[in-house]
Amino acid sequence: MAKEFEIRTDLALEEKESFPGDGGEIHGVSLKEWQDKGGNFKITEVVVLDEEGARAMGKPVGTYMTLEAKNLKWREKEYHTALAKELARQIERLMRRQCIGEDGNILVVGLGNEAVTPDSLGPRVVSQLRISRHLKKKYRQEMFGSGRSVSALVPGVMAQTGMETAEIIRGVVQETKPDMVLVIDALAARSVRRLGNTIQLSDTGISPGSGVGNHRSAITEEVLGIPVLAVGVPTVVGAAAIAHDTVGALIQVLNREQITQNIGQYIENMDPEEQYAFIREILDPEFGSMYVTEPDIDETIRQLGMLISDGIHRAVYPEDEREG
Amino acid sequence: MAKEFEIRTDLALEEKESFPGDGGEIHGVSLKEWQDKGGNFKITEVVVLDEEGARAMGKPVGTYMTLEAKNLKWREKEYHTALAKELARQIERLMRRQCIGEDGNILVVGLGNEAVTPDSLGPRVVSQLRISRHLKKKYRQEMFGSGRSVSALVPGVMAQTGMETAEIIRGVVQETKPDMVLVIDALAARSVRRLGNTIQLSDTGISPGSGVGNHRSAITEEVLGIPVLAVGVPTVVGAAAIAHDTVGALIQVLNREQITQNIGQYIENMDPEEQYAFIREILDPEFGSMYVTEPDIDETIRQLGMLISDGIHRAVYPEDEREG
Amino acid sequence: MAKEFEIRTDLALEEKESFPGDGGEIHGVSLKEWQDKGGNFKITEVVVLDEEGARAMGKPVGTYMTLEAKNLKWREKEYHTALAKELARQIERLMRRQCIGEDGNILVVGLGNEAVTPDSLGPRVVSQLRISRHLKKKYRQEMFGSGRSVSALVPGVMAQTGMETAEIIRGVVQETKPDMVLVIDALAARSVRRLGNTIQLSDTGISPGSGVGNHRSAITEEVLGIPVLAVGVPTVVGAAAIAHDTVGALIQVLNREQITQNIGQYIENMDPEEQYAFIREILDPEFGSMYVTEPDIDETIRQLGMLISDGIHRAVYPEDEREG
Amino acid sequence: MAKEFEIRTDLALEEKESFPGDGGEIHGVSLKEWQDKGGNFKITEVVVLDEEGARAMGKPVGTYMTLEAKNLKWREKEYHTALAKELARQIERLMRRQCIGEDGNILVVGLGNEAVTPDSLGPRVVSQLRISRHLKKKYRQEMFGSGRSVSALVPGVMAQTGMETAEIIRGVVQETKPDMVLVIDALAARSVRRLGNTIQLSDTGISPGSGVGNHRSAITEEVLGIPVLAVGVPTVVGAAAIAHDTVGALIQVLNREQITQNIGQYIENMDPEEQYAFIREILDPEFGSMYVTEPDIDETIRQLGMLISDGIHRAVYPEDEREG
Repeated sequence: MAKEFEIRTDLALEEKESFPGDGGEIHGVSLKEWQDKGGNFKITEVVVLDEEGARAMGKPVGTYMTLEAKNLKWREKEYHTALAKELARQIERLMRRQCIGEDGNILVVGLGNEAVTPDSLGPRVVSQLRISRHLKKKYRQEMFGSGRSVSALVPGVMAQTGMETAEIIRGVVQETKPDMVLVIDALAARSVRRLGNTIQLSDTGISPGSGVGNHRSAITEEVLGIPVLAVGVPTVVGAAAIAHDTVGALIQVLNREQITQNIGQYIENMDPEEQYAFIREILDPEFGSMYVTEPDIDETIRQLGMLISDGIHRAVYPEDEREG
Repeated sequence: MAKEFEIRTDLALEEKESFPGDGGEIHGVSLKEWQDKGGNFKITEVVVLDEEGARAMGKPVGTYMTLEAKNLKWREKEYHTALAKELARQIERLMRRQCIGEDGNILVVGLGNEAVTPDSLGPRVVSQLRISRHLKKKYRQEMFGSGRSVSALVPGVMAQTGMETAEIIRGVVQETKPDMVLVIDALAARSVRRLGNTIQLSDTGISPGSGVGNHRSAITEEVLGIPVLAVGVPTVVGAAAIAHDTVGALIQVLNREQITQNIGQYIENMDPEEQYAFIREILDPEFGSMYVTEPDIDETIRQLGMLISDGIHRAVYPEDEREG
Repeated sequence: MAKEFEIRTDLALEEKESFPGDGGEIHGVSLKEWQDKGGNFKITEVVVLDEEGARAMGKPVGTYMTLEAKNLKWREKEYHTALAKELARQIERLMRRQCIGEDGNILVVGLGNEAVTPDSLGPRVVSQLRISRHLKKKYRQEMFGSGRSVSALVPGVMAQTGMETAEIIRGVVQETKPDMVLVIDALAARSVRRLGNTIQLSDTGISPGSGVGNHRSAITEEVLGIPVLAVGVPTVVGAAAIAHDTVGALIQVLNREQITQNIGQYIENMDPEEQYAFIREILDPEFGSMYVTEPDIDETIRQLGMLISDGIHRAVYPEDEREG
Repeated sequence: MAKEFEIRTDLALEEKESFPGDGGEIHGVSLKEWQDKGGNFKITEVVVLDEEGARAMGKPVGTYMTLEAKNLKWREKEYHTALAKELARQIERLMRRQCIGEDGNILVVGLGNEAVTPDSLGPRVVSQLRISRHLKKKYRQEMFGSGRSVSALVPGVMAQTGMETAEIIRGVVQETKPDMVLVIDALAARSVRRLGNTIQLSDTGISPGSGVGNHRSAITEEVLGIPVLAVGVPTVVGAAAIAHDTVGALIQVLNREQITQNIGQYIENMDPEEQYAFIREILDPEFGSMYVTEPDIDETIRQLGMLISDGIHRAVYPEDEREG
């Protein structure tokens, strides 16, 4: 189906894949891929270089790292440690580029709704972090040397607070003056096979979009005045994507058999506007906001929460190798 | 699409609706419908009278009451009270038929997984009940007269316990000898528009089936030796149902336009086996167990939890009108 | 025992009671007491009129209302409704004095730590509020007329955030410009018999002090620039108070018998400095921060959470009598 | 103060210490103590050998291991690993004595109330266990070889269920036939300095007693028909112990100064009956059930939950060294 028609995704990688030829050359966008030594995971870097790239991708200029693991739910310690180290390496790389010093204060923000399991990743990660800003302020150099300090915020979602998440963060940033914000969020993917095995890191912050509960207007350097890194993990697929995929799969199946080929082609050749109207007809109006998730999402969130908080610890407290 | 092809539903009402003519006569099944006086909700009673009906419906012999409200999430006290009273009336009616006396002990079982929001209805209801069995045993007649007593159990799900839910309940029933079991469960519906506004009551207990996390093998009078009432509320739709509905809607849309009519008819006329294979091709293998739910499912569960615990209180403690 | 020696309390009423003659005349402090018509609860108003009173009481100038119920845990609907109405009346009275208009925006702040039961009252109350600021901003006059709007914040405690609670609130107030802040907090009382049946309301905000987890430096009009009402309920007693009470009770018992009277008098007549040193010797150094609470504190918090959120609803949405 | 007067403790070690001479010879009780190699923790083994010892100790015949760490809250990975390994070693030793084979099924029971922080240790440990009984039943030998399998139960407390915890466990044991029960529980200590740094292991199960919420009548081999190991950690001190300690400390202080010595001696020499009446007078009647706990009990429970579930994993899945 044509591009105009696409269901939104929070993943730059999925956006990239949706281009014809599975990611051929796009002006203003660069792409690099590599594997870790152990062959356990794949890393993809999509850099949106300029405004042209930003228009093509529907994503702001910046760097988007994607870590794809075979199975984040696999409970093997070594595997988890390898992943956490890789995550730490990528976070550090982005922090260095943003010139976050050895004694910077990082405000970690756990976006999302604690009371809705697939949306609870951010609050969960924050609850497992070692918080140190208040201790460093109190005991200063003696105890903590010149290391980094961490503060944390779980702002809640608009239905719970009546406020934009961005308003809350802005206020807290102005009052407590951290050097960087690191937001953690549950994302919406376009494809079911992304759930629970992909981590996206970017230095662009978060722009108004889909997400699980859509709890954000721009949380970006432009708005906050300090760098914003974002760590996101897809935990849901918008229900609309399912209907979209079903129609896509239908066309494929129909195209395969000679007798039904012309039916498939007919649907495929509808112009995007028609297709859009068509999918909208199929979808119940109440359906748009629904999402699809896994039955064992609680276990996924538990494992991801440990993995990401471990990764952040390793990145922000490098001196503290013993730390869990 | 043909019956053979249908996606499973936990709702007897949806099963009934799926018959041609929207519920014409089926041998062995009776149907009654009425409205409450205030016009706030609709009640439907489906009685599966005999084995013939049971085969047709794919549901055991017994009575299935359905309460359909316009909006269970509407936060209006009067409306909630009316609903809770109706629910209480229906629970009482079924208890009377099972000859549960004025001083019976009722074991309320909250099925489901507390850690997964749409599956947490049962545990939530139980957490709000007034529990009295231990007090009645201790203070006997003096304080509690001859009223009913309530005990409660949250057995968890198999991934958490390693045991069948039915095993746990059976053990507890044998040890504590209640007169009746009342199970509360989150159900899977076939259609999105059932979510959060339908309550099903039955006197057949719960048979192995879909449910949200499929946490049950038979919890029935046959297995437990005492009557089992079940209160269920659909909180999810299986993701497979979405694909199914999309194809159905596609056919409808195609049939409407002259030029595409033959395409629609072609798909419609595939034989059930072919259709089944076709949908299976469309669906990702990982997709089968996924489910669709609402973004504000936390609020739905909160409201439903209050409503159902209120209804149960009114039914089991009728002498205690003041009770919240 | 002498005043200098006293264990700190968050309750103005306990402070007042500690004066000789159980609250004789103190310069700069006025006291009024009355009962509700039904005789269900007692209301005490302590007004600290000027700096002289403030010094005597160790509490800032302002009004402190105390509602004492026989038993807040009693699950009777009528009784709860009477209490919630009284609470609403007092909140309204204080709001009027602060000139909060009919269309003001009130930011409710739930202080405390959700993960520690006796400290979780604030977050619990907030989780049950109807939040409306975002809806009013979106739909404006049409839907909501000129009624008040509510936003809410659960800032967490310093060990979780690394930030002063007051910093977070100040930032959010500056960014979202509410007309008033209403803080909810769990308090530390001096006496076990205050636990779970006393509600204190004041228009002085919250000053650095004991509290359960001591999660606050000044949250006051002076700091935030807008009026601050505080609703507090004692849920713990500092463990130090227990040691103190034990010594006090010991003296009483000893004084009663002729043979031991001189022993009691001896301890009683120690000068305050000596007494202080003496109690400090008795107390383990780790002991100071410990607190005493009830075994069924979960049920207390549940009931109080419903009561206080009901009271706030009635006060801020007076037009909306149907609201739960 | 005399023995008759003592406040109950769940710790055999505290019971032992209360004997004159800090644990001189008691008939029927043996005592061994040692340190780990790293000097990080002390292990004490109290064996109640016969009925004489049982009477003296107020504890059933059996083995009681105590692990005392400097600080269980210290977040250092290596230290935690050393503790978890020691805990595993002791659990294994007791399992071997009970002849639990290499393919036994162990039912882990998390006692306590999830909603009350210091009482939530048991449920917390269980929520972090890898559960395998259902998988082993399904996939048998192929996947799991002959390893042990784990099932788990969180029975709740009597106020939540209306049933004795022992009734629930008995029913589940009869239905699912495990080879051993391992109960995890939060205990009440007599002294504040035991909180959060002592783990007690015993092979006697749990007898009716104090505990935090007193949620148990006998959970023992006699009642269940299979061996019962118990892992307990003191997380509270009964408030009565505080009053008791205060009087004790008072006597010490008074005895030190010549002028007050006779007062101290007077109180000390009261006969136990008098002393008991005296303490009872001091204590508020509502006071008896209160308990003392730490302000950062949430963090203690979090760390202990990880430590104990790690220890259990290492003991029951020895083949699975990689497991977290």
